[in-house]
Order: sequence, then C-alpha cells, then structure tokens
Amino acid sequence: MSQTTVAADPSICSPLPVLGRDVTVPLVTGGDVTYAALDYAASAPALQRVWDDVAAYAPYYGSVHRGAGYLSQLSTDLFENARRTVADFLGCRADDQVVFTRSTTDSLNLLARVIPADCRVFVFETEHHASLLPWQDSRVTYLDAPRTPQQAVRTLERALADRDPYGPALVCVTGASNVTGELWPVRELAAAAHAHGARIVLDAAQLAPHHPVDIADLDVDWVAFSGHKLYAPFGAGVLAGRADWLRAAEPYLAGGGASRRVTRRTDGGVDVEWHESAARHEAGSPNVIGAYAIASACKALTEAGWTDLVARERRLVERVRAGLAGVPQVKVLSLFGDDAPRVGVISFVVEGWNSSHFAAALSAEYGIGVRDGLFCAHPLVRTLLGTDPQTQGECGAPEAAPGEKSLNAIRVSFGAGTPDEHVERFLAAVRELVTEGAKWTYRTEDGRCVPAV
Amino acid sequence: MSQTTVAADPSICSPLPVLGRDVTVPLVTGGDVTYAALDYAASAPALQRVWDDVAAYAPYYGSVHRGAGYLSQLSTDLFENARRTVADFLGCRADDQVVFTRSTTDSLNLLARVIPADCRVFVFETEHHASLLPWQDSRVTYLDAPRTPQQAVRTLERALADRDPYGPALVCVTGASNVTGELWPVRELAAAAHAHGARIVLDAAQLAPHHPVDIADLDVDWVAFSGHKLYAPFGAGVLAGRADWLRAAEPYLAGGGASRRVTRRTDGGVDVEWHESAARHEAGSPNVIGAYAIASACKALTEAGWTDLVARERRLVERVRAGLAGVPQVKVLSLFGDDAPRVGVISFVVEGWNSSHFAAALSAEYGIGVRDGLFCAHPLVRTLLGTDPQTQGECGAPEAAPGEKSLNAIRVSFGAGTPDEHVERFLAAVRELVTEGAKWTYRTEDGRCVPAV
Repeated sequence: MSQTTVAADPSICSPLPVLGRDVTVPLVTGGDVTYAALDYAASAPALQRVWDDVAAYAPYYGSVHRGAGYLSQLSTDLFENARRTVADFLGCRADDQVVFTRSTTDSLNLLARVIPADCRVFVFETEHHASLLPWQDSRVTYLDAPRTPQQAVRTLERALADRDPYGPALVCVTGASNVTGELWPVRELAAAAHAHGARIVLDAAQLAPHHPVDIADLDVDWVAFSGHKLYAPFGAGVLAGRADWLRAAEPYLAGGGASRRVTRRTDGGVDVEWHESAARHEAGSPNVIGAYAIASACKALTEAGWTDLVARERRLVERVRAGLAGVPQVKVLSLFGDDAPRVGVISFVVEGWNSSHFAAALSAEYGIGVRDGLFCAHPLVRTLLGTDPQTQGECGAPEAAPGEKSLNAIRVSFGAGTPDEHVERFLAAVRELVTEGAKWTYRTEDGRCVPAV
Repeated sequence: MSQTTVAADPSICSPLPVLGRDVTVPLVTGGDVTYAALDYAASAPALQRVWDDVAAYAPYYGSVHRGAGYLSQLSTDLFENARRTVADFLGCRADDQVVFTRSTTDSLNLLARVIPADCRVFVFETEHHASLLPWQDSRVTYLDAPRTPQQAVRTLERALADRDPYGPALVCVTGASNVTGELWPVRELAAAAHAHGARIVLDAAQLAPHHPVDIADLDVDWVAFSGHKLYAPFGAGVLAGRADWLRAAEPYLAGGGASRRVTRRTDGGVDVEWHESAARHEAGSPNVIGAYAIASACKALTEAGWTDLVARERRLVERVRAGLAGVPQVKVLSLFGDDAPRVGVISFVVEGWNSSHFAAALSAEYGIGVRDGLFCAHPLVRTLLGTDPQTQGECGAPEAAPGEKSLNAIRVSFGAGTPDEHVERFLAAVRELVTEGAKWTYRTEDGRCVPAV
C-alpha cells in the first residue's frame, strides 16, 4: 500500500489525541490490549482538546441568560459564542439560525415540527431512521434506493416534478451514509430541490466529522449534526439554517427561555409571546457544556486543517478497503460501487459467519470495538444484503449461531482520532478469524453475543 | 440566630464540595473575591463527586446499546444502571419507567405529547412556564393562585369535580416554587387528584435538589427533574413514572434507538415497530454522560444523607430570612406566608431599588451571583408584586433606572454546596447597599444591567 510513501509526510500521519487512547481492555484469551474504538459512526471519543476545554470551563459553569452574576454572564457569553463558532464552522449565511438540540435525531424532529402543514417530504429509503421517520408518514414520498449518485438526482427530480399538488416540499438527505460511508451528491440534490421549488436539509451526522460542510457553498437550507459523532459527546446537537420556517412555527419545546412574555387572559387562559431567535426552540436551561464542547470540536477540526484530516482518513479508508478486498470471504456493502468517494464508515458481511458472532470475536479476542446490526437504517441494509424486507433483524440484535446466513452486517468506522495500528489490527484480526476461526465459543445473553464462560 | 448551636454539630455544617468553590471574580471596585454562586435555582454547580465520576468515566465512553466492543458494553451497562439508580433515588414502583430527557422542560413536553387526546390538564397559574405552557391551551384549566396550601387543595378538588365532561385529567404541580421556595402540598394534591379520577405529575425541578422525593410515598404518577439543578449540569433530565400512557403514545422523538423494526410497505410507505421500554421516547444516541452524572448526583445526595442536607439548608434558609427581615426596605415574596416550609429559594424586592440594578451591584461590587427578573413564572411574580398583568417584564430584562418601582424581583437561591460565608456575605451586601447605596453607576447594555465604564 501507499503507507510508506504517506508516512514520509508526518502532517497527515498523526491522529488527533482523543480520550481513551490508552485505555486497555481484557481479552477473553488472556491479557490486556489497548482498546481499538472502531465505532466512530455511532459515537466518537471526545477529542482531548474538547475534554480539556470542558474541564477548564466546568468550574466557571453558571446559569445562562438570566443570571446577574459574573459566572452567569461568562457562561451566557460562552454559550452564545458557541453558536457563532458553529455558524462559522458551517459557513452559515447572515440570516441563518443555529439551534442547539440534543442530537441529529432531535434536530430533524424539530424540523419536522416546523415545516408548513402542507409540506411534502421526499426522502430516500436509504436514510438513517433519524432522517426517515420524523416526518408524518402520510406526507412523505419514500424514494427507492438509487444505484448511482446520478440516479439519485434523477429520481429526486422526477419525484419533485410529479408532486401533486405542486406545493411546499422538503428533501431530507444524508451527506455520507451511516452504512456504506459513501458520499451523496448533496450539491446536485440541492440544485434539483431548488429548481423544483423545494427546500433541502442535509443530515451531516456522518459527514461533518469527516469533511468540511459549507451550508452556503452546498446551497442547502438546513444542516443537522450531532456532538457525539463530532468528538464532543456531551448531549448536544445542532440544527442550522433558514430562519423563516423556524420563526413562523410553534416552539418545539414550550417553557422558560422560549417565552418572552406570559400573561393571564381575562377569560382565564394564558397568552404567550415567544422569542423569534433560536431561543424559541430551546426552552429550558440550555446544555451549555454540550454546546461549548461542540464549539471546541469545531475549532479543533478547523485548526487541525481539513486538507490533512481528509487526506489522512482517505488513506485509512483505502487501507481498510484494500485489506478487506484481500479476504475473499468478505463482502463490502456498497450502493454506488467501488469508485464512490466515502468517509471512514465501511460495512461488510463475512461468508460463513453470523455478523454478531464476528463482531463479538473482534471485541473479545482482539479488543476491537465495531458494530453489528442494521445500523438504524433497516431498509438500506436489507436492500444491500438482499434479504427479504419482512425478515426480522432488530437494531443490532445478535443471532449467535455461526454458519447461518447473516441477516445483519458488521460496520467498522473511524476518524480523526484513529491511529494506523487500530486499522492494521482490525485487518489482521479479520484475516485470522476467517482463516483460523474464533478461539472461543459465544452465546446470546440479554440480546448480546458474548463469550461463553 | 441558632448558628452557634448548630455549629457544634459538624455533620450539618459542611457544604458538599462543588466545582468552582475556589473561583475568584474581579470586583468593579478593585480586587478579586471568591465567587458566591447564589443562583442554584437556575443552575447549580456540579458536585465535585459528579465531576470526578464523569472524568473517570470519560476515557471509557463508547457507543451504547448496539456496539459490540468492550467500551460499548461498559457504556451500555453504565447507562442502564443510571436508570436504575434514578429509579431507586425516586422510590419508583416496579412498573414505573425512567426516561432520560434533556431537562424538566423536556420531560413535561414529553408528557404533554403522551397524554390521551381528551385529557384535561389542571395547572395553577403559579407554576414555572415549563409546567404552565407545554399543554395545549384549549385543554388546560388554569387555576388562580392559592394563598394557603389548604386553599390549593380545595381549589383543585373543586375544579376536578366540576370538569365537564368528567374524562381523563392530569394535574401538574411543582413540589417547591421556583420563586418563593415554598413547598406545595403534593401528597394532598395527589390524593385529591386520584379521588377525582385524575393523574398528577410532580415538577420536582426545585424539590429534588433539596428534599427526598419518593414517588410511591407521595403517590404521584410521574416526577420530572433536571440534572443541571441537581448538581449534574450535563444536559440531561428525567421523567419517571407510570408506563401505560408512555407505552401507548407515539414516540416523542422518531428515529433510531426508539425503532425496533422498520420495513418498506408494498405501497411504498414505511412501517415502524417501536420499542415499548423507555427507549421508545429516547430516539438518537443517548446522552450517556448526562445520565451518568445524574446517577452520580443521586448517589452522592443519598450518601450525604437527606436528614443532614435538609437540616443544614433549613438553617441557611432561616439565616437568610432572619437577615432580610432585619432590613425594613426588603420585602420577601410569599404565597403561603411566613410559616410555610420552604427550600433555599427566596425572592424579594428592595424599596427604592430596581431589582436588576440591585442584582448587578451584588455581582459587580460583592462577587455574588443572584438572579433578577420574573423567573420564568410571569403570572406568579406579577401576582406577588401586585403589578398589572399587562405590564412588560421580560424574562430577566433589566431596567436599570434606580428609584422606580420594580416590575421584577431578585432571587437568591442555594443548596448543598453553599458555604455559610456566601449567605453571610449576601446579607452584609444587602444591608450595605440599602444603607449606603451602590458604589458604582450602572447602565443597560444588550439587555443586561452592567457597571458603566
């Protein structure tokens, strides 16, 4: 591989320091090993920088927005500055709003609540459930899985053109698949949406940790992402974009902070005047630490430099794909084919292995944390596996009988904190498991596939 | 005061260690002083123990529920154990559910989404906006402010008895007022609710940090509270209680984690089978750190011992009330009168002072952080101040003209981490400001009252 060549350039060789990089875990076969966290697509470890920032701030934590004390004012400034940092990170337009939510799921549920009552939603069946399910079923047009990016654009164009009535419409699309890691043609889909009088929201949960996202450049109307996938796992997420629908809608949460003025009416009822800023949808005390952690991660990634981050991850992706391609029993799942650009998210099945069994062995015998299941994208994974849409397959339910056809898959995912050694260990483990089998036996316990004791 | 007597018993004299206890802040008059955080009712500092637990766990953070790796399993166990710890802390019944939310506001908004369509809601106008506003206005009966706990019970009984039709009903009531700190007769209100075929949810945001809350003993149907007021400010909250309505309702958030199985229908639509456990309403990656921090706080408070915690806080409350009673210009706000039991939350106005001006001077000249405003309980504060219900008065908007009648109030609040010195400094500052006036001049800037420079 190109490893030797690339190693000559130290700038793209060093992972960013993350928490847990020295954590060791026990192996069922004896001894301990440094944990290889290869489930970044679910939750990434905190950047050391993010943790350090949170730890430095924590003693200064205070009530925000309405406290008169010094720490309240400091915390309020920190919270509102975090909003500006996120706006910069996403290249927001001057009139865009940045709403702090709890996650991408929460952000898209919020958007689902603010779209006009007659808005039609268009979503590919290949989306994560967070993008697939928040919309009222009767309003949604689910689009079949495309097999090329071009087909995605054509499918969307046709569906938008055919909509009847030709009213308000929203397209919801991922930037990078949480199953295949493949990039979606966001700019082209946005152009198609706008050409047909629709708006578009980008689910950047899997894109933002791996690639720069510029809302104005991509010309999308909203972007949603999660802190816990962006190396800032403190319970916050973001919805950023067009203010008009956000301002026009009822508040997502009703309560303090969102309400500017509340009065009893003479008829005994209550009148509420709501804020029109982002606070309208952020009722309750904000998650200051969560928002600050996201801002810290945005700064850390920007300062590390996207060119280097992307180049380093691309090298890891190529290394994993080449390594897996050398194991004939492994089938990598793909919608758009080998040449599609992708981030560090790769799903596969292993002939003769149940995926849960394989994932459990990677953990117990090699200290490698991957994920098995349908990855909260059931229709997509079933399409990719070619299994009956009616087959069972819970979100990650392991069926530990080795040898039978897998109804779910294994996903390995990584990012800015992943050292080369994790990827190399993973590939060596895959080769060893496939050629020599597991060293241990496994059974299902409480829905998990675990080593039998 | 009883201070000398009490000081002989060290067990009720030591505050619990909190983050920020050594933070100093600059005074406008020169020099620095240790910050006195007296805005616990908005957000309390993290217990040192909570921070230590979070810091010890953070390197082991991993994706929960569906990850196969060691840290994923450890994190999943930690998250589900946190749920059990909270259930124990609240004395939950065997079939109660504990849902992790982001805050009390979020918990009550969740409950508002799961109540039956024909459910009537009964809420006193004295509630925090988080309890007052989540319900559909047309379904709510707002009850006038009672002037005794007994009157509260009678008012509720009458309203419930008179409801027409006599269908499903929910009462939402605070355990301790976020304005006056006064305890509400929760057990009696619960009995009244149940006697009239209604259910009741306890807003324990201000009660849980100060008093033991036992859901079975109080016989309430649900309890809601926030981590950030319970010394665990990491973006999580709790709704705990009866499972039936939670299980019967549509998920609060739609997405992964809440969905057990998603399939395309032959007509192109999507069928979803949702979980029936607490996960039903927790779509998206859970805030593991936030939930763990709450569990840590629950354990720390339980281990510190409620008898001691309550006794110590009662002493501080008595000290503050006696101190303020010695300043004739100060009027403490109260609904139930001097003898009402209360937690460490006290609101007041100062004759001849604008509240925002007074709060700003406490901060800038004494390093004391209190709050001014209407405390997200506009109808209650206007009732207590006797101001016109139509007067302006934003949530905390300062009007810095000294001398004019205050349209808002000052709130001092404290808890398990508050040293005696903070309370003594606060009382000395109030006396000094009232007798000698502010040493500095103040002006309004960006909606805040700040020292003029």
